Amino acid sequence: MYRHEWKMRVSYADTDRMGYMYYGNYPKFYEVARVEALRNVGISYKELEDSGVILPVGDLKVKYIKPAYYDDQLKVVTIIDKVPGVKFHFRYEIYNDKEELINIGETTLVFVDLKTGKPCRPPHHIEEIFQSVITE
Amino acid sequence: MYRHEWKMRVSYADTDRMGYMYYGNYPKFYEVARVEALRNVGISYKELEDSGVILPVGDLKVKYIKPAYYDDQLKVVTIIDKVPGVKFHFRYEIYNDKEELINIGETTLVFVDLKTGKPCRPPHHIEEIFQSVITE
Amino acid sequence: MYRHEWKMRVSYADTDRMGYMYYGNYPKFYEVARVEALRNVGISYKELEDSGVILPVGDLKVKYIKPAYYDDQLKVVTIIDKVPGVKFHFRYEIYNDKEELINIGETTLVFVDLKTGKPCRPPHHIEEIFQSVITE
Amino acid sequence: MYRHEWKMRVSYADTDRMGYMYYGNYPKFYEVARVEALRNVGISYKELEDSGVILPVGDLKVKYIKPAYYDDQLKVVTIIDKVPGVKFHFRYEIYNDKEELINIGETTLVFVDLKTGKPCRPPHHIEEIFQSVITE
Repeated sequence: MYRHEWKMRVSYADTDRMGYMYYGNYPKFYEVARVEALRNVGISYKELEDSGVILPVGDLKVKYIKPAYYDDQLKVVTIIDKVPGVKFHFRYEIYNDKEELINIGETTLVFVDLKTGKPCRPPHHIEEIFQSVITE
Repeated sequence: MYRHEWKMRVSYADTDRMGYMYYGNYPKFYEVARVEALRNVGISYKELEDSGVILPVGDLKVKYIKPAYYDDQLKVVTIIDKVPGVKFHFRYEIYNDKEELINIGETTLVFVDLKTGKPCRPPHHIEEIFQSVITE
Repeated sequence: MYRHEWKMRVSYADTDRMGYMYYGNYPKFYEVARVEALRNVGISYKELEDSGVILPVGDLKVKYIKPAYYDDQLKVVTIIDKVPGVKFHFRYEIYNDKEELINIGETTLVFVDLKTGKPCRPPHHIEEIFQSVITE
Repeated sequence: MYRHEWKMRVSYADTDRMGYMYYGNYPKFYEVARVEALRNVGISYKELEDSGVILPVGDLKVKYIKPAYYDDQLKVVTIIDKVPGVKFHFRYEIYNDKEELINIGETTLVFVDLKTGKPCRPPHHIEEIFQSVITE
């Protein structure tokens, strides 16, 4: 299991009329945390795309346990349980300042070859990285 | 079953670098479609909140089947299968111009009494409306 | 002068903790209104881009007069005073349900040739359209 | 003059179909940078609001010089030239990784007393802080 933490603050832009972080902004938090989790093991999502492989999201699940509030400094934990194949699965746990688990998420991304538009295996170095990172 | 259709166009703001509608913008489309589905049976979400009942989202599921592109006029179908109790469940189907189903979503909202902060039954008129609308 | 009106509703996603439409969401409203103003005279912004001409924004001004609130149905008026050259100037006036002017905006867009990356004249048919529309 | 720097990365959510950061996302970057500039001198924007004073934005200007791209780590410089009175003026300069100035912004915020809904003087401690910080 690979586990990575990233701190993100709830901005005014993220809030809604209820005073909560808007429910539709969590996927953005997942995206940022996921990209940083990859960067942390030497994978640049940008370079991946520039090399001709994109990673669109196939499905998303979110469980809202407690609200996040304006200016909260959230800890977003990204968890990768399995070496990616054609599909790349991520889980997320979000904790507030009091270390309460307030939100759980999941996304499945799919490696897609830009040229063919078809799902494909991940680049070799990505498989290798996660083979070593996950079994550590 | 209550079924309501709403047309929404993908703006430039909604797009991302891949040329797709960003995966995190679908929940906003669901929100707008859901509010219009309620308005269509005489329920103002705003008045509901002003009367002291809020409806935070408890969970969300999204299945991304095909991308939505800039300027696409999407048809967002909101489906309510069950008279709301403490929980209010919505399904969404999004179709593109070619009538292809490109996205499926689900949200469960929870009626919460603003004063107590606790889950509560929906206001009586809302139960009544859906008792008549769903069994039609 | 060419003047076009477009109705847009403030969604929950657009609101902030103050209960207002977030100040950073007005440019998105301008974008949508601007694209519809062009569509109304037969210009598809999407086709324009697909033909190799993009229109990045060069500057933006916003004056916030009164707040917009959740669920307000706003009237966004797009005004074009001058036939576009390399620069394309738009003004916006936003009115609430009570016909109060609540927001004024301006954007200057620049025609850019995708191939050269340099500013360019607008496609001929766009100049022609605005020559006839504005002097009407 | 008070000058504060804050690093912010362009997320996928921030990008648009052109591959640029969407023009409407800069105000959000200004907001985050502004709040951090205040935090840096001991002012919590959240506490300010909780004490009954809000700071809605009265006007905004943006000059887009060069695009920001996906994954760029931007340096957002917030500049306060003048001790705030009823109005609080901020300037912003955004630099990319190559230290190129790519964007300039300005916002004028207004102190408003939540109870009366009217513009008001800033809380005394805020005036004091900026009297010392700016004349340093």
